[in-house]
Amino acid sequence: MIRPARVSDLTALVAMLADDPLGATREQLSDPLPQSYLDAFTAIDDDPNNHLLVATSADRVAGTMQITYLPGLSHQGSWRCQIEGVRVAREFRSQGIGGHMIRWAIAQARERGCRFVQLTSDKSRTDARRFYEKLGFTASHEGFKLRLG
Amino acid sequence: MIRPARVSDLTALVAMLADDPLGATREQLSDPLPQSYLDAFTAIDDDPNNHLLVATSADRVAGTMQITYLPGLSHQGSWRCQIEGVRVAREFRSQGIGGHMIRWAIAQARERGCRFVQLTSDKSRTDARRFYEKLGFTASHEGFKLRLG
Repeated sequence: MIRPARVSDLTALVAMLADDPLGATREQLSDPLPQSYLDAFTAIDDDPNNHLLVATSADRVAGTMQITYLPGLSHQGSWRCQIEGVRVAREFRSQGIGGHMIRWAIAQARERGCRFVQLTSDKSRTDARRFYEKLGFTASHEGFKLRLG
Repeated sequence: MIRPARVSDLTALVAMLADDPLGATREQLSDPLPQSYLDAFTAIDDDPNNHLLVATSADRVAGTMQITYLPGLSHQGSWRCQIEGVRVAREFRSQGIGGHMIRWAIAQARERGCRFVQLTSDKSRTDARRFYEKLGFTASHEGFKLRLG
């Protein structure tokens, strides 16, 4: 099942972000969590174009992703659906949960009238390309990042 | 100078999007413009996290870009600044306007407390990589797109 994330999911969500080769060095899974995670949750929750989601399996938090709906002028004023922060908890991997989440996001994007679904994936995640191509995506773009401060 | 786009800029902006190897086939520069462009302008204008911008030179529209501020849970709840739809009008190219626009966006992102600036560029735009790397970006990600309907 996929449902909106709740504040009470936050520790499980940050644990998932931290349990990752890239996330391990950049997240802080302390108790209590740094206030910045709560602030981010609130900012997402308050924005009708942003949705933080949770995939559950047997009532446990199994995965997460964020969806953002982006208005834009190009392609005759098309909306885009952007997916960020896709993670599946270690004990739930290889069960098709990631694919289920992305297909769910694509269906939502269609319903909202988006012309594109887009996402970027760190090139060091070597399995990602096959995963997203199987779901119909094309690796047509370079993804540029600039870290500030 | 860089300023927010106005409805009265729309024809010039769509003309810029259309005057592009990729944009030529996907935009519709009719008079009047299709309503979808006006709807997109309004959606961007109504959203405090979205900004459609115009670069001017001698009071003429010389370039455009869209900036979106994205809240997110990862990187300890960091905000990101995303740039889309960067275009410079043909007669104003090779004058440093594109670089000026991107540096302006980076400065805005710092001011808003963003930890990242991000964008994607179609791999067929072969000059883009050098342009963005010179501005400090790293092509660290694959950009996946899925076109709907």
